[in-house]
Amino acid sequence: MTIDQFFPVWDQLAPQQRELISASAASRTVSRGTLLHSGSADCVGLFLVRAGQLRAFILSDEGKEVTLYRLFSRDICLFSGACMFSQLSFDIHVEAEEDSLLWVVPPMVYQQLMERSAPLANFTNQLLSGRFSEVMWLLDQILFRRFDSRLAAFLLEESAIQGTDDLSITHERIARHLGSAREVVTRMLKYFQSEGMVSLSRGTVRLTDRAALSALAG
Amino acid sequence: MTIDQFFPVWDQLAPQQRELISASAASRTVSRGTLLHSGSADCVGLFLVRAGQLRAFILSDEGKEVTLYRLFSRDICLFSGACMFSQLSFDIHVEAEEDSLLWVVPPMVYQQLMERSAPLANFTNQLLSGRFSEVMWLLDQILFRRFDSRLAAFLLEESAIQGTDDLSITHERIARHLGSAREVVTRMLKYFQSEGMVSLSRGTVRLTDRAALSALAG
Repeated sequence: MTIDQFFPVWDQLAPQQRELISASAASRTVSRGTLLHSGSADCVGLFLVRAGQLRAFILSDEGKEVTLYRLFSRDICLFSGACMFSQLSFDIHVEAEEDSLLWVVPPMVYQQLMERSAPLANFTNQLLSGRFSEVMWLLDQILFRRFDSRLAAFLLEESAIQGTDDLSITHERIARHLGSAREVVTRMLKYFQSEGMVSLSRGTVRLTDRAALSALAG
Repeated sequence: MTIDQFFPVWDQLAPQQRELISASAASRTVSRGTLLHSGSADCVGLFLVRAGQLRAFILSDEGKEVTLYRLFSRDICLFSGACMFSQLSFDIHVEAEEDSLLWVVPPMVYQQLMERSAPLANFTNQLLSGRFSEVMWLLDQILFRRFDSRLAAFLLEESAIQGTDDLSITHERIARHLGSAREVVTRMLKYFQSEGMVSLSRGTVRLTDRAALSALAG
């Protein structure tokens, strides 16, 4: 996977601009569980995900986590270069959820290019709007959906990501994604099991009635 | 207040670009309570607030409202031109919270200019980042703060906006801002009153201990 594939506007960049991105991008291999970015004071640069899976989340003072969104192959993580956006004033954390292969573009390089290139600035606008939409979806879920609906939506999403109905995931980990407590997740999963929607065993959740889960997810 | 004052990058636009914005902007007077924008299907254009106050909020299927942020004189509302951002997929509603005077810039005009002008596209990036930060603040409040803390923060913010410690606001209206129920707001305000932080009478909330409210707001 080459670097031009990340940028639909690659053809609209000048040759020396393309060269600057290619030459300044550093390759980085990270293993599952690595914390890659931590809060707005941290400004490593743009992460271009070549392979693997990243997770962006927020963290409370008490250490409670809530997943904002995931990044997959071909995705770009802007907020690991938060210092490029002077009006940005929130703290996001990014970890590798799988072993991953990244390119890291230095924030000063990207910012310099964006200031001069209308296509790159407009592309960045679209990236920002996309992430904004994911966070608005989450806000809607948290404000207006019940916990059973959020859990059902999470299990279906996780099944799509893992590509199987047999999820390898602990109740603790589900709780961290949803900003809930392990006990609350366990209680709800047991209710799902009693309704025939899932089957539980140690460290796994098997989806046994996707239609019912979809109806619940809304 | 002239239109160039809304755009810190005005000097970096070409004369014909400035002319296009000035010539296409329509003046609009709206009275308090007017719904100006409703969801992403609605794409009236950018609102430039010359005077007054707008409120952006989200709405559940059951009609529950939650305030996202307010717009004051010199602020620009991007999402009333949501169609400019192809990756934007959420519904925001905007109402005039006071009698207001606006300029409305057609979305096609702004989008066309933004596509060609790197300064305007970067300025738009900063606007997006600012709104994103306000929504992230709200998400943090909802996920990690208790209701008493959110209510105290709201009363202090409202006092700053109205410029007085005597707030003219009903419990019903506070509930709509915070996405809560009137009964819950009334109960908490009565508790605040018993602690000497506010004094309640019909249609008004007087702040009587700002220090205690600030401590609670965190």
